[in-house]
Amino acid sequence: MDNWRTAIATSDDAHIWIHGYDVTELMTQADFTDTIFLLHRGRLPNFGEKRILNAILIAVADHGAGAPSCATARLAASGNRQSPSAAIAAGILAIGDEHGGAGSACMELIAVGVDLAKKHAISIEDAARRVVDDAVANKKRLPGLGHRVHSTDPRKAMLFQLADDAHVAGGGVAFISALERAAAEKIKALPINIDGALAAVLYDLGFSPLFGKLIFIIGRVAGITAEVAEEYARERPMRIRIPVAYDGAPPRKIG
Amino acid sequence: MDNWRTAIATSDDAHIWIHGYDVTELMTQADFTDTIFLLHRGRLPNFGEKRILNAILIAVADHGAGAPSCATARLAASGNRQSPSAAIAAGILAIGDEHGGAGSACMELIAVGVDLAKKHAISIEDAARRVVDDAVANKKRLPGLGHRVHSTDPRKAMLFQLADDAHVAGGGVAFISALERAAAEKIKALPINIDGALAAVLYDLGFSPLFGKLIFIIGRVAGITAEVAEEYARERPMRIRIPVAYDGAPPRKIG
Amino acid sequence: MDNWRTAIATSDDAHIWIHGYDVTELMTQADFTDTIFLLHRGRLPNFGEKRILNAILIAVADHGAGAPSCATARLAASGNRQSPSAAIAAGILAIGDEHGGAGSACMELIAVGVDLAKKHAISIEDAARRVVDDAVANKKRLPGLGHRVHSTDPRKAMLFQLADDAHVAGGGVAFISALERAAAEKIKALPINIDGALAAVLYDLGFSPLFGKLIFIIGRVAGITAEVAEEYARERPMRIRIPVAYDGAPPRKIG
Amino acid sequence: MDNWRTAIATSDDAHIWIHGYDVTELMTQADFTDTIFLLHRGRLPNFGEKRILNAILIAVADHGAGAPSCATARLAASGNRQSPSAAIAAGILAIGDEHGGAGSACMELIAVGVDLAKKHAISIEDAARRVVDDAVANKKRLPGLGHRVHSTDPRKAMLFQLADDAHVAGGGVAFISALERAAAEKIKALPINIDGALAAVLYDLGFSPLFGKLIFIIGRVAGITAEVAEEYARERPMRIRIPVAYDGAPPRKIG
Repeated sequence: MDNWRTAIATSDDAHIWIHGYDVTELMTQADFTDTIFLLHRGRLPNFGEKRILNAILIAVADHGAGAPSCATARLAASGNRQSPSAAIAAGILAIGDEHGGAGSACMELIAVGVDLAKKHAISIEDAARRVVDDAVANKKRLPGLGHRVHSTDPRKAMLFQLADDAHVAGGGVAFISALERAAAEKIKALPINIDGALAAVLYDLGFSPLFGKLIFIIGRVAGITAEVAEEYARERPMRIRIPVAYDGAPPRKIG
Repeated sequence: MDNWRTAIATSDDAHIWIHGYDVTELMTQADFTDTIFLLHRGRLPNFGEKRILNAILIAVADHGAGAPSCATARLAASGNRQSPSAAIAAGILAIGDEHGGAGSACMELIAVGVDLAKKHAISIEDAARRVVDDAVANKKRLPGLGHRVHSTDPRKAMLFQLADDAHVAGGGVAFISALERAAAEKIKALPINIDGALAAVLYDLGFSPLFGKLIFIIGRVAGITAEVAEEYARERPMRIRIPVAYDGAPPRKIG
Repeated sequence: MDNWRTAIATSDDAHIWIHGYDVTELMTQADFTDTIFLLHRGRLPNFGEKRILNAILIAVADHGAGAPSCATARLAASGNRQSPSAAIAAGILAIGDEHGGAGSACMELIAVGVDLAKKHAISIEDAARRVVDDAVANKKRLPGLGHRVHSTDPRKAMLFQLADDAHVAGGGVAFISALERAAAEKIKALPINIDGALAAVLYDLGFSPLFGKLIFIIGRVAGITAEVAEEYARERPMRIRIPVAYDGAPPRKIG
Repeated sequence: MDNWRTAIATSDDAHIWIHGYDVTELMTQADFTDTIFLLHRGRLPNFGEKRILNAILIAVADHGAGAPSCATARLAASGNRQSPSAAIAAGILAIGDEHGGAGSACMELIAVGVDLAKKHAISIEDAARRVVDDAVANKKRLPGLGHRVHSTDPRKAMLFQLADDAHVAGGGVAFISALERAAAEKIKALPINIDGALAAVLYDLGFSPLFGKLIFIIGRVAGITAEVAEEYARERPMRIRIPVAYDGAPPRKIG
């Protein structure tokens, strides 16, 4: 047990520090979004960084009770009300590459594209075309493009405008925009979705790809907790019945 | 499947609304703490409410890698790195009445005490004494008092001062303070801990007892995600070895 | 870290022991059901005990993809396929007092009833009547009676017959049967359900109430894993869409 | 909601069927291990298949309270005792590629090796050498070989002997054995571990790679449930304190 170490938080009898800042000072001189940034970056954000982090957290906080994360949480709450943690954890477990987690993969793709442009001294447009060609050749989906509901995600334009206003839009926003154009040219119209938008902006803010998933979880837990509270308050246990069609073996006997 | 309903969030092709507010408007006109309040209360907070919510979220965000929630998340990450959701969910599952969840029980106790004072037209001090007598008689612990590390939790004074400044301190703060005095008189010095402090203030802000657990989870997920990111970045898989003493049956043969 | 101890399992470089038995000996001289019994009781089962444990594990293994545990697992798998553990854990989180966990509460109720009969030297029938009267007076549900689908659960008769055959039916089976009669007399027909049946038999086998929940989880994880494997094999990610009616605030502006 | 379907289990008012078999018939004519096989393969096992499945489930059931899965479950139980499901789910979440899940990756590697031998009409030995060369060239670990505790895992020999006795040992056992020899020749002594042994045998039994992870979870949940029950029975909440060294920023002021 001699190998537990951390650079994030520590405490003594009279203090708790996060990256060196006394929590009681943070409680009056900073807000929760500052603290999220601090926990993940080791420093407090500037005005533009904070504004964008807020916008992303709000953008992903809740999308309705039918999204896998919220529906999973409510379904778990329907059978198990002994611990709110159980329902909330179940909701988080539904977040992955397919739901809420594409931001990570998209940030990795952006890094590939930006590096490609640098290494080969080609334009971002050309790098994006190569990435699309590669996806087509390998039959891979492009993370961050396309959405099953929104033809144009309203949150994307807002996020890019905030990034512009704060002068943080850089290679990430440029590459994902070029990727959208290249995909439209070579595949079909695949508008930038919220995962792609937040990936581009987080890349430009210097976050690691992993944070593309983590920020979705931090934001969505605000929604999941509200959905679980509503389930407890408004619904009876076991109210959820999912009709399932059986298409397996007919009745038979052993032996 | 005709019984799924929600009053929290909905969307169409071009909008997402949370309690009627367009998410794109929230992204520019509000921040994440406003949105947490909105999700749980159905309205935006005023200045004092928001300030206190921020302070509580910061107060519980991280207390070090050895707290059950963070240690559980890191231990899970040590064996399973396929999905950050898995490690984060494991950390949340360690949050319960014994860790991080006493705020709920304390809010229920405050409600009992405040109602007792009203119903019997007795002082808050007398109501607190009765509650302590009852706990002693039934050998029950008083949630919100006492801490295994801090003799005086530094976060409590700060929270109560913010509540005072914002003129929201009411029956909750009065009752928990009376309870601390009554416990000192009849049991021993049991200082108000962070659970007790946040319970008192949340009660005065009109939150339900369930929210006492939910706010801890919302705040702590900011810390858990940072701890999991640090585990991935700094530690090898399976680095954690917990030395366990075996005190069971000696080797034996079947039959 | 000096307080980790266990009486269950230990290992050295060349052996692993469970309650003193070498795992390699168990692998050839025992089966999985023996090992489950061994892990929870510290000894191997006799023939009748094993037969009944098998029957219960089979009885709860799977009840269809629409049960909260399996549906929750599949919903989580729909959004997150990075880790099968995540989907399986989500399914387990849906198991609680309301789904699959009533066996524990029923075992506690049986203990109360059997003790009541002993302490007051009354018949099991009279003890059951008192328990029903108490439930009616306090508006409490009787765990182990009634089911939302089966009017007579086919698994109950089979389990009781096996308990009879193995001569293990005792106070537990007698009390739950008396409770069913007393409930029919004083409330309405509330047939013993699978939770009640397994609770009675586990009580007679000397298990603790907690095991009433644990055996459901052990058995159901066999079904949940199969359901998750089927979800991966047959369904596309994000295939699940839950239609939700919104009945909250209409669109509005901030401020 | 018209896309929920399953071929595993269904029920009506008087029956529950698993792959067409009436659960009440399974309860008397089969045992839990038969049912696990049935759930995952759609048919009942023969004698040899069942014997090996039992041996694997026992082999992975429990390895001591310090293994990540059991330690994570106990740590979660230390903070949250409201729902046993929460602690058990936390334990399962620690199972991944790095702990308990290497069987899946090893089954995939075996399939690669066996296919390589067939396609290029080379011996299993030569195919194994190519796989080792490839791993060395790409600096990849070989799943199924090596263990942090056991120099020779005692469970491996027993499993291979059972496979031999039941005449099921085939390409899987042959390939992993060749791989062990090739690794010893080209890297260093890396004995087949339990993941490699179960992977080889499960491959020979015709299971999919995913089942390599699932069987570990099914077997280990027997141990995790026992460990959680022991934690509840023997230990106080919050008894676990993990000493953590802080090596981050020193105390500092905002601004």
